[in-house]
Amino acid sequence: MSFPDALTRARDLAEAQIAAALTDVDLPVAEAMRYAVRGGKGLRAFLVIESASLYGIETAASVAAAIECVHAYSLVHDDLPCMDDDDLRRGLPTVHRKWDEATAVLAGDALQSLGFGLLVDADCPAEYRLDLIRSFALAGGVRGMVGGQALDIMAETADVPLTLEQVIRLQAGKTGALITWSATAGARMAGADITALQTYGDALGLAFQIWDDVLDVTGDAATVGKAVGKDASAGKATFVSLLGLDEAKRRADELVTKACDALAVYGQSAETLREAARFVISRDR
Amino acid sequence: MSFPDALTRARDLAEAQIAAALTDVDLPVAEAMRYAVRGGKGLRAFLVIESASLYGIETAASVAAAIECVHAYSLVHDDLPCMDDDDLRRGLPTVHRKWDEATAVLAGDALQSLGFGLLVDADCPAEYRLDLIRSFALAGGVRGMVGGQALDIMAETADVPLTLEQVIRLQAGKTGALITWSATAGARMAGADITALQTYGDALGLAFQIWDDVLDVTGDAATVGKAVGKDASAGKATFVSLLGLDEAKRRADELVTKACDALAVYGQSAETLREAARFVISRDR
Repeated sequence: MSFPDALTRARDLAEAQIAAALTDVDLPVAEAMRYAVRGGKGLRAFLVIESASLYGIETAASVAAAIECVHAYSLVHDDLPCMDDDDLRRGLPTVHRKWDEATAVLAGDALQSLGFGLLVDADCPAEYRLDLIRSFALAGGVRGMVGGQALDIMAETADVPLTLEQVIRLQAGKTGALITWSATAGARMAGADITALQTYGDALGLAFQIWDDVLDVTGDAATVGKAVGKDASAGKATFVSLLGLDEAKRRADELVTKACDALAVYGQSAETLREAARFVISRDR
Repeated sequence: MSFPDALTRARDLAEAQIAAALTDVDLPVAEAMRYAVRGGKGLRAFLVIESASLYGIETAASVAAAIECVHAYSLVHDDLPCMDDDDLRRGLPTVHRKWDEATAVLAGDALQSLGFGLLVDADCPAEYRLDLIRSFALAGGVRGMVGGQALDIMAETADVPLTLEQVIRLQAGKTGALITWSATAGARMAGADITALQTYGDALGLAFQIWDDVLDVTGDAATVGKAVGKDASAGKATFVSLLGLDEAKRRADELVTKACDALAVYGQSAETLREAARFVISRDR
């Protein structure tokens, strides 16, 4: 299967699991949850399903759904007026614009709960499921994504822009932790060594974020699906402001090579994951 | 051990576990997390530790900490300007007043992640830990607490006040689900039948909420530790507005009897849990 097809399939599998989990919950907040997960790229779901497939596991849909729940919740909360204050996400009104702020807070909260609930049903032995949940809680929590978000907010009010090292640390939390978790999920489901997939995920996550900064400068809102140019106009340190556009692109490219090389141990069966890494620095949204 | 001592001990055990989990996280958001869990009544932690003790399990501190994390997160988000907009909680400034809204959103989010992370370390077999996590996700999610919160917000803008049946459904989610979960946690850790503790928890939770409505009418803010009289002035349907003060108290009393009776199977060893039920309708905060 080609990468674009695998991506679409992973996203659809995850969305179907989430919709099934919300069947017969007849509340606006449940509708907001479904809305929030729809239309994403599905990159994290893809990483879960593809890494599981390296170990012959073809039933990772609930794990893929779990990571998409948590990713979606983080976007819903990140878009809130007290955070990034965005009106547009994936080309559509953000949850708090379509409903209201209270619904956005609650939909995000319930998406996080649902994410953990879905992991309980992962199709692997109990001990491995517990490892998935333990690592998921770390990657999403104050030592992972939320910690990165908090650093990001502190950076906005700091007197001096962050250094490159600080931006890398921030992004390793904010977007890197969940991407790496997604990439390692397959090995965790198999109780196998996660090292190679971790290296892949770390490099991919950083390349992904560098490319987001590139798109913030070179993209247009209609294609990207959210506001662009915000970071630059806010005087925020980004990979582009710190490295320049060309050097940022060169680093992203270098990271993608590193990510692909890390998968050598899996041989040809990891080719779709390599394709994904190359996609990350060619996408226009 | 008397009930007040057991309550203090459970709360302190939970707080110590949470503080340990946050050791060396040097971010304002982590400070906000610690702040948010401090000074609670510790009722949920107590229910976990006491129900576990019925099964001879004396090592339920991480499970107690998990429920206090989720309880604290729900309060932090509930106090936000877009929700109840409260300045005071447990007699101190709410998190968004002491820090800011973004920190309050993130601290709540990370407390939820931490709660799930703590459950992974529950001192019981892997299958029972997964049962704890599955039921915890349901109790805290859109079919439990968040669903109740969402109904509560809808009620505020509804044209007609809720009926008694609707208020009972709302509260069963908003506060009942986590209280019942806490009461059943011990049986879950032992892989035992949860029925008796579930009946106890359901009755206790409803009595608890009725008494909260009583305190909203009869209490003063300094003692209760948060604003009072808000529901009445907002024209919100409460157990007191629907039943009258005397009938509300009588129902709470009846529920406490039901809760105590449900524990007959545990004999004398459940006496502290019975004391807890009686406390719920005698507390002044």
